[in-house]
Amino acid sequence: MSKFWSKLLKQTDPYIPGEQPKTTKVIKLNTNENPYPPSPKVLDAIKQATDESLRLYPSPTADDLRETVASYYGLKDNQIFIGNGSDEVLAFSFMAFFNPGEKILFPDISYSFYPVYAKLFQIDYELVELTGDFTIPVEQFFNAKGGVIFPNPNAPTGVLLSLNDVELILQNNKEKVVIIDEAYIDFGGESAVQLVDQYDNLLVIQTLSKSRSLAGMRVGLAVGNENLITGLNHIKNSVNSYTLDRLALVAAKASFEDEVYFKEVCETIIQEREKAASTLRALGFHVLQSQANFLFASHPKVDAEFLYEQLKERNIFIRFFKKPKIDQYVRITVGNRADMQEFFDVLKEIV
Amino acid sequence: MSKFWSKLLKQTDPYIPGEQPKTTKVIKLNTNENPYPPSPKVLDAIKQATDESLRLYPSPTADDLRETVASYYGLKDNQIFIGNGSDEVLAFSFMAFFNPGEKILFPDISYSFYPVYAKLFQIDYELVELTGDFTIPVEQFFNAKGGVIFPNPNAPTGVLLSLNDVELILQNNKEKVVIIDEAYIDFGGESAVQLVDQYDNLLVIQTLSKSRSLAGMRVGLAVGNENLITGLNHIKNSVNSYTLDRLALVAAKASFEDEVYFKEVCETIIQEREKAASTLRALGFHVLQSQANFLFASHPKVDAEFLYEQLKERNIFIRFFKKPKIDQYVRITVGNRADMQEFFDVLKEIV
Repeated sequence: MSKFWSKLLKQTDPYIPGEQPKTTKVIKLNTNENPYPPSPKVLDAIKQATDESLRLYPSPTADDLRETVASYYGLKDNQIFIGNGSDEVLAFSFMAFFNPGEKILFPDISYSFYPVYAKLFQIDYELVELTGDFTIPVEQFFNAKGGVIFPNPNAPTGVLLSLNDVELILQNNKEKVVIIDEAYIDFGGESAVQLVDQYDNLLVIQTLSKSRSLAGMRVGLAVGNENLITGLNHIKNSVNSYTLDRLALVAAKASFEDEVYFKEVCETIIQEREKAASTLRALGFHVLQSQANFLFASHPKVDAEFLYEQLKERNIFIRFFKKPKIDQYVRITVGNRADMQEFFDVLKEIV
Repeated sequence: MSKFWSKLLKQTDPYIPGEQPKTTKVIKLNTNENPYPPSPKVLDAIKQATDESLRLYPSPTADDLRETVASYYGLKDNQIFIGNGSDEVLAFSFMAFFNPGEKILFPDISYSFYPVYAKLFQIDYELVELTGDFTIPVEQFFNAKGGVIFPNPNAPTGVLLSLNDVELILQNNKEKVVIIDEAYIDFGGESAVQLVDQYDNLLVIQTLSKSRSLAGMRVGLAVGNENLITGLNHIKNSVNSYTLDRLALVAAKASFEDEVYFKEVCETIIQEREKAASTLRALGFHVLQSQANFLFASHPKVDAEFLYEQLKERNIFIRFFKKPKIDQYVRITVGNRADMQEFFDVLKEIV
């Protein structure tokens, strides 16, 4: 704290991301990164674009990329917003669509960045309790005073809400924006993107960090009604005209153009996830049904924090949240076959 | 406007960046980009880093780059903050150090993003009138209620304030943060970075977009007392944990490591600027003494907007601000020799 800090700054409660160990000699199953590299076409596109044009500003409106994404989803480009990772898109959305004094709703077990945004922008919120099996109680999201936001599949649980249930929430919040945070949708869920023409209060947020193996390039996007997208652009253009560099724009475009590779990677991860879930269950773990690239699991006899610490000592990083209701769970990112093998070898010794 | 927009969104007044023409068949002297490419070592470093590691998140704290910048300036790495272009650093600084209800001061002729930030974050401000020759009236920046911010050299004028005068402003605002926006400092000015150990209220903001030819990569930085840097990190970590992608971090580091190339480019631009200023004066223009990579000029007989339009019709883009006191001036970025030659050829026909 310092006498120079603003009132706003004094009340922040910053997000703490998962550890990024500096050595590469670790098995990293803690931040839901994709174990497979980006498409070779993405790497080629970046190298191609690495020339003297980097002296010039990027497109402030990301036109090329927006057109690609729009055509990928069969939408118009004014229904697409591009941001610096979905975290930035989420931050701008909190600013654009939620008001202080009007409580927004999100699940009590959810992405832990939401309360951070709410605190920064002074948005009041109410935590809606998940049911005992960690599913979202749909009716309790009806008629929100200020709006609704939740991840689908939810994080850190991996539990998916059906598109029917998403629609019920949309229909019962017609005057307020409902944000579906689809960071993990490509690992088995059905995207709400197909509903944007029907619901003008729907904003879908996605990222290229998980299913498209581009966490290192910081690209996120929002899909929604033109009015919502215009709003996001007003916020962006009041903060930073150019939030994505030239290479990030090129990488993202190339990724959307390589559908075959993308599908293959997602399919492989889904298979590995199901195998890993079975192995965990065989070891006595309770494992939630996940539609994401991670598993949320609890062992009746092994303390979760102990497990986390033991694995960390042996250079295997998973995620542990010291929070009520989930402090006996660990979140394990689905890695590649070799990493999962080593993880299970060590895990068997501990359990 | 839409019923879904927040109160905050409804009151924004977004910044409009200089045109980014889609064709390359233009002479672009309108957004102060560097006419010379980034160092070849920067391009090599990017290509080297374009590998499967892009699937992993970048360092959220930009440690490597901060160490490089710190050692470049002979400071500690906790005195350095890295952001997505200096625009983002400026936005975070408005949030971190200025309060609604406490008027900050900036010049009436200045970077036109300042009022945009102020509006978004509801910071009250007072415009301090520049003197008749566009210099900053130092005493009028003393004892600001909320803080001070100005570019040095100033934009769009290019006029430099001496480091002595900067110190006077710092000494007379000991309880408030003074932000020196040094986007153009490398083209002839003396940086206030050397004062950060002396003044705990000083924040210096710089960019790699101009002197380091990396507008396309979005890297800006702030240098200041550890307390101020911690504050900026709190804001950043309440918005987006990773604001720079892996390639931007690598590019910036390589740029700071190639001092020889950097100095050469700056020196060349300074020489071209002086030549261009002479040529403009010979054509009857009044040209302000610039220490930036652009010239601010007015012709007694040719209307500035007419000049801007005429040049644009011939695919030469310069910048015109339709604003009181400067609507008879145009801002011309210093280009390379060939571009300047063509610019002057066309200009001679018009004038």
